[in-house]
Amino acid sequence: MKILVTGFDPFGGQAINPAFEAVKLLPDSIGGAEIVKVEIPTVFGKCAEKVEQAINQHNPDCVLCVGQAGGRSSITVEKVAINYCDARIADNDGNQPLDCKIKEDGENAYFATLPVKAMVENCRKNGIPANLSFTAGTYVCNDVMYRLLYMTSKKYSHIKGGFIHVPFAVQQVTNYGDGMASWEVSTIAKGLEYAIEAIAHNSEDISVHMGATH
Amino acid sequence: MKILVTGFDPFGGQAINPAFEAVKLLPDSIGGAEIVKVEIPTVFGKCAEKVEQAINQHNPDCVLCVGQAGGRSSITVEKVAINYCDARIADNDGNQPLDCKIKEDGENAYFATLPVKAMVENCRKNGIPANLSFTAGTYVCNDVMYRLLYMTSKKYSHIKGGFIHVPFAVQQVTNYGDGMASWEVSTIAKGLEYAIEAIAHNSEDISVHMGATH
Amino acid sequence: MKILVTGFDPFGGQAINPAFEAVKLLPDSIGGAEIVKVEIPTVFGKCAEKVEQAINQHNPDCVLCVGQAGGRSSITVEKVAINYCDARIADNDGNQPLDCKIKEDGENAYFATLPVKAMVENCRKNGIPANLSFTAGTYVCNDVMYRLLYMTSKKYSHIKGGFIHVPFAVQQVTNYGDGMASWEVSTIAKGLEYAIEAIAHNSEDISVHMGATH
Amino acid sequence: MKILVTGFDPFGGQAINPAFEAVKLLPDSIGGAEIVKVEIPTVFGKCAEKVEQAINQHNPDCVLCVGQAGGRSSITVEKVAINYCDARIADNDGNQPLDCKIKEDGENAYFATLPVKAMVENCRKNGIPANLSFTAGTYVCNDVMYRLLYMTSKKYSHIKGGFIHVPFAVQQVTNYGDGMASWEVSTIAKGLEYAIEAIAHNSEDISVHMGATH
Repeated sequence: MKILVTGFDPFGGQAINPAFEAVKLLPDSIGGAEIVKVEIPTVFGKCAEKVEQAINQHNPDCVLCVGQAGGRSSITVEKVAINYCDARIADNDGNQPLDCKIKEDGENAYFATLPVKAMVENCRKNGIPANLSFTAGTYVCNDVMYRLLYMTSKKYSHIKGGFIHVPFAVQQVTNYGDGMASWEVSTIAKGLEYAIEAIAHNSEDISVHMGATH
Repeated sequence: MKILVTGFDPFGGQAINPAFEAVKLLPDSIGGAEIVKVEIPTVFGKCAEKVEQAINQHNPDCVLCVGQAGGRSSITVEKVAINYCDARIADNDGNQPLDCKIKEDGENAYFATLPVKAMVENCRKNGIPANLSFTAGTYVCNDVMYRLLYMTSKKYSHIKGGFIHVPFAVQQVTNYGDGMASWEVSTIAKGLEYAIEAIAHNSEDISVHMGATH
Repeated sequence: MKILVTGFDPFGGQAINPAFEAVKLLPDSIGGAEIVKVEIPTVFGKCAEKVEQAINQHNPDCVLCVGQAGGRSSITVEKVAINYCDARIADNDGNQPLDCKIKEDGENAYFATLPVKAMVENCRKNGIPANLSFTAGTYVCNDVMYRLLYMTSKKYSHIKGGFIHVPFAVQQVTNYGDGMASWEVSTIAKGLEYAIEAIAHNSEDISVHMGATH
Repeated sequence: MKILVTGFDPFGGQAINPAFEAVKLLPDSIGGAEIVKVEIPTVFGKCAEKVEQAINQHNPDCVLCVGQAGGRSSITVEKVAINYCDARIADNDGNQPLDCKIKEDGENAYFATLPVKAMVENCRKNGIPANLSFTAGTYVCNDVMYRLLYMTSKKYSHIKGGFIHVPFAVQQVTNYGDGMASWEVSTIAKGLEYAIEAIAHNSEDISVHMGATH
């Protein structure tokens, strides 16, 4: 099995992005799966073009994108991406799309096809706080997750996809008052490793097992 | 114009639900629109049956459901409901659906068809903190919002629908330590009134004006 | 019984200070006690000079100063003021004392001589969230509380004194994201009224009843 | 120079106390100072007896006590301890003192005599979030800090003393929802090391340099 793991470059005036810093620390093999690491730009649309190039180059079985969610205090595995963008600040190319759809012909939302509950559980079992999240926001993180799941649903249906948000790194918040959560990048990397281990061990699409309430 | 406004009954061991307590305080007419108030049960599925009965009885132009989001500190107008439920606690009939879809034949998600941005803005303009939210959770609040938008999309396409989450009432958190947000029910009612005023003045579906980034 | 209640004027670029706005809403008599209301400047030192003038003019039995603690979500009754100031922003006269004592010949700290636990309990009993706090900060709020208790301990030993911090008013945080607590000024005023009622009914110094652990 | 560093044993049903776990990771020498590590019991009064025994045994120049402050997100260096205890839960010997003084003949409060601002700054300079705190609470942490400064002021005036609160360790909060801050114990230990380095390099009492505002 091959797993493509992407991390964004820094944005919003930050010197680093803990997402890619942590991705860089990952081993080259996790739970028997080969790990391919790619940095992607914090730019609406372009982020997903870079993901698709990497898909075509590496032909992975799974794609996990990773981004920073400043203020969150745990590994948060995203359940759903929505067909909506609304940017509070400009991206790294100066784009600031407001109150609009991402894809005219896309679903209103796509659910992650990675085993999100197992990813959360494997972090927790190994001592790393983790939670399932039901909003990836309306910025570039949701954008890349939505576009990834749009493209896998249409063109690469054999590929499972998903997204993880990570806390600030400690060095990003040294001058904040108490109350802003952060982890060392090495802690974030451990969380990603346990989440990816769950992917490697449990790669079937959990959504096919879901029944309805009635 | 007629606007149906629903509020849930108390759940989770609480003596009141600030949602319906606030709904009860609303005037019978807001911004020229007639207001019909209905209490609905905090029960998966049944909540929406009660909404549909009220739709058939009152034939409203818009439906706004209101629920409690303990811990939030402002009026939060929900943008999207997802086809997913996962109940942390049992509902008032003892149901606790876990990790499942709401409707087998439903969309992954539905966007509110009420003018959510105008609703937020009208609260803020009148001094009531309000925000757009991108997750209604995975409990009965998301359930009723999802089922409302499912039924309006399929059977009542002339009706606009949406959902608002409100903070705890002050009397619910008197013994909590500092750090748990709350408002008086009368403040919550003011927020609802400004949000509904925006609906009355701006009832077209904003989603039809949304373009895509590309 | 006569109770002097003070509130600060606005500072830090805010249009109002919810402390004095709430004080203005208080009735002229609470629990049988006469209420005298005075606005004081958000200026180190001068705030307490204004308090002392009002003491000399009105000869109260108790003095309760009230200030804003942006971010807190309940009525917080302060237990202690410390002989220390460190101003994050300049006061309304442009002073910004850093890392210094307030009074060379003062105690390291003074405890409130008002019945702080009864004040908290009476708020809670009447449905208003309240808590005891053990830090009044290092800005003008702590300054006036410290100077009040310094002067009552040295010159006006028959007068009981204390301080209450109150949340932001709703209109101060309308444009903040969800997560910043606030109350309507009328809710804050209710909390102050219940706290003052406890003072009127229970004016003896609770500190004289305190024993030691050993 | 010799610095005695203490950490509490686990309490409140927790399997570990990150305070002593981090203390154990400290090197035996920091900034040229010898480090002596002692575990102390989470018991009112007894905690300080253990500190005094260690003072008599090791004759340190400085004493730094370390405790857990669940919910805080950074190294918080305490400025002040107050003559007051009020225990929300029983300590490890079943004592639960309520609303009482610690020492009948003690000051209302004592300020830390370690260089607290330099300790915060050295953490921040090295990428570890840190803040000055003005309340050590009313439980055993405040108790040991108060008793330490009481005894150093009366019997060991050549010894500087202070207290640091640290966040939860990650393994303590794995099952909490997002929103509860935590660090790995190794991150906490880094913060302690930088704080202690500042003590070693800057051991004079900062309080002697403090002037008054007037």
